[in-house]
Amino acid sequence: MRFTDLIEEKKAGKALTKEEISWWIKSYVKGKIPDYQVSALLMAIVFRGMNEEETLNLTLEMMHSGDILDLSSINGVTVDKHSTGGVGDKTSLVLGPLAASCGVKMAKMSGRGLGFTGGTIDKLESIPGFSTVMPRDHFLRQVNRIGFAIVGQSGNLVPADKKLYALRDVTGTVNSIPLIASSIMSKKLAAGSQVILLDVKYGSGAFMKTKEDARRLAGTMIRIGEGAGRRMTAMITDMQTPLGCAIGNRLEVMEAVQTLAGGGPADLKELCMAGGRLLLTRSGLAADAEEADRKLEQALSSGAALEKLAQMVHAQGGDESCIYHPEKLLQAPHRTALVSPAGGWVVREDALTLGEAAMRLGAGRAKKDDRIDPDAGIVLQVKPGQQIEEGQPLAYVYHRDLLTEEWTRHVMSAFEIGSEKPETVPLIEEVLE
Amino acid sequence: MRFTDLIEEKKAGKALTKEEISWWIKSYVKGKIPDYQVSALLMAIVFRGMNEEETLNLTLEMMHSGDILDLSSINGVTVDKHSTGGVGDKTSLVLGPLAASCGVKMAKMSGRGLGFTGGTIDKLESIPGFSTVMPRDHFLRQVNRIGFAIVGQSGNLVPADKKLYALRDVTGTVNSIPLIASSIMSKKLAAGSQVILLDVKYGSGAFMKTKEDARRLAGTMIRIGEGAGRRMTAMITDMQTPLGCAIGNRLEVMEAVQTLAGGGPADLKELCMAGGRLLLTRSGLAADAEEADRKLEQALSSGAALEKLAQMVHAQGGDESCIYHPEKLLQAPHRTALVSPAGGWVVREDALTLGEAAMRLGAGRAKKDDRIDPDAGIVLQVKPGQQIEEGQPLAYVYHRDLLTEEWTRHVMSAFEIGSEKPETVPLIEEVLE
Repeated sequence: MRFTDLIEEKKAGKALTKEEISWWIKSYVKGKIPDYQVSALLMAIVFRGMNEEETLNLTLEMMHSGDILDLSSINGVTVDKHSTGGVGDKTSLVLGPLAASCGVKMAKMSGRGLGFTGGTIDKLESIPGFSTVMPRDHFLRQVNRIGFAIVGQSGNLVPADKKLYALRDVTGTVNSIPLIASSIMSKKLAAGSQVILLDVKYGSGAFMKTKEDARRLAGTMIRIGEGAGRRMTAMITDMQTPLGCAIGNRLEVMEAVQTLAGGGPADLKELCMAGGRLLLTRSGLAADAEEADRKLEQALSSGAALEKLAQMVHAQGGDESCIYHPEKLLQAPHRTALVSPAGGWVVREDALTLGEAAMRLGAGRAKKDDRIDPDAGIVLQVKPGQQIEEGQPLAYVYHRDLLTEEWTRHVMSAFEIGSEKPETVPLIEEVLE
Repeated sequence: MRFTDLIEEKKAGKALTKEEISWWIKSYVKGKIPDYQVSALLMAIVFRGMNEEETLNLTLEMMHSGDILDLSSINGVTVDKHSTGGVGDKTSLVLGPLAASCGVKMAKMSGRGLGFTGGTIDKLESIPGFSTVMPRDHFLRQVNRIGFAIVGQSGNLVPADKKLYALRDVTGTVNSIPLIASSIMSKKLAAGSQVILLDVKYGSGAFMKTKEDARRLAGTMIRIGEGAGRRMTAMITDMQTPLGCAIGNRLEVMEAVQTLAGGGPADLKELCMAGGRLLLTRSGLAADAEEADRKLEQALSSGAALEKLAQMVHAQGGDESCIYHPEKLLQAPHRTALVSPAGGWVVREDALTLGEAAMRLGAGRAKKDDRIDPDAGIVLQVKPGQQIEEGQPLAYVYHRDLLTEEWTRHVMSAFEIGSEKPETVPLIEEVLE
């Protein structure tokens, strides 16, 4: 087999065979195919796409390039959840304990944030003492014992994706639905859970800018998962506006705690309830949506869900008193209000702009090696569709350094105030089961 | 400037600016941009193309990446000629001496053959003693003295093309009109001639498979050359059938000699006359086509053109007696006739199949480092449109090893014999001036 033949075939719009894909991935991981040939193939894939069978074959080959987690020692239905990333997305911190307190076993591996999107690992590590690194057997024991654990990706899981993603990142070949789907799903499949819930976001603060692309990506991932024998479900959700109100690591943990305690922003609760409903029904822990809702509401009102988070924080070395006294997490030296220059209706709160503004405060990373300031961030005080008065705070900024005029102008450009009540889009556009 | 931005722009179908192209080529030649990023950009160019301005800017930037030949010491109009390559294409060996004997100065750099196409350098080197390497000042002196020299590409001419072409060759990014045009034209511009004649071939034995692509490539190259202030002209010519009858290095030199001596195949003579006409008129050495034709016919019938070849062979160290006694070049140990299995009309003689068959005899190279057998080759005895009888020789094969049955089946598949006189296509489809 010659690699240039694979490039020529894909360039001509032909499908790669299972054998060709297998040879590509195996040889590339072994260092037998140079990056410059693979990047040319990747660019041809960006233009020509891959059909369902190719995408499944690529995903399975990548999945098998390294270790595969064996969750068979876990009693119960193992579930996993993946969000394609956004601004203010602390869903895992709420949905994980909520679903675990209803009986699912969530053995989750998460990533760090980059650019305007946050990462669950960064959020968890903002809890004093919390560790996201542990031996594999501890991880499995914790899931068995309390039903929930989140660790960073470790070990030799899907080395093909690490190598391919690093190349895609510097060759303009990130943006391709089959490549995104195979990257995400190879990791989810290798992580071993039986039930997988996908939260595919669209809008300015998401990777997919349109509903249509989000739907295509979700559909592709569902077909891969089902092709690999997993129970799949997906939500297509809005990321034009940040999720919830808090953006920034400790601020988001606080908001997750408030939500588990029965409060929290309505949109965050809505998403976590919807995700919980899907996980419980797909796991067979609830016969239908009504039963699932009852169990989830019960877990919230009884305090069981919040306690689950506390157990998990404790098990992973974190200071669980922060869960019962979340105000402890509020440590930024300065808080500044951003006030509305006019009365009217909040028409838009742009997720991308707010995500970037929070990153520049230190809540995120512009480059992989940047350090995060866990205290920095923004907490929205209003949401689109809400009526406000001139001078009313739109958001509070939590910061260490003084805010510059340029930064303030930038963050204020995220808000659009209009004179008429705007139409708002539903948070959950569609559920794919 | 970030190279990924250039990739993203091209991926989105935008044009690269002069500054971006300049930065790309300069940095790449200096080794500051990795191959894997450049191959991704090249593949995006394959899909998105480049507009006229981009293509000209790329060509000029490549041209300026190394030495530029200064032909100002040559008295007279300097001309160059480039064929996009084909099977049996010995045009330079005829047209060079023919035009030089009419007064033009042809300072030509040529390449070696690869795959099914031959190379002028290989053909010349098949003449005992002939050298295609000489110091720059010798080269210029020879052109001044006898009007004609052909050498291999040497020195630091267009290093950007060497590097880019080597990368394109292994990344499936050869086949792109702006990339082909800039590769060819950067070398032609750096070689310094005032008048440039392009022979853009189409058909199975050519790089461009269709007339339309050949026309687009020719148009692109003409606009580049004119943009750089050169006098351009181009012919679009057929390469569905080999040019002339001989395929193989010494066999082709023999055929060139026969043509210069006033004989030779009609199609080869037609092409060389047409090329000569364009060179003489574009150089101002003939007022019009009629005057050019008179001069060219005179050069052939007087023996001046043949003598010019002998002078050039002598000047470059070759055995010029081969020019007056070309039978000396016929040294293959075996000659085998390929006879027609049926009577009828020759409908097709496929250039690609014949080129590959000759290559497999040793007349060409499958890989860059393969050695050539200068004696091996095929000489067609009939051409499409000709009527033949069963058992009549279609071609003679000149070979060293015994012919295998498989090879014979392969070469015979090039010939199609039909029961009706076929329509034949004109050799010269179009002349672009």
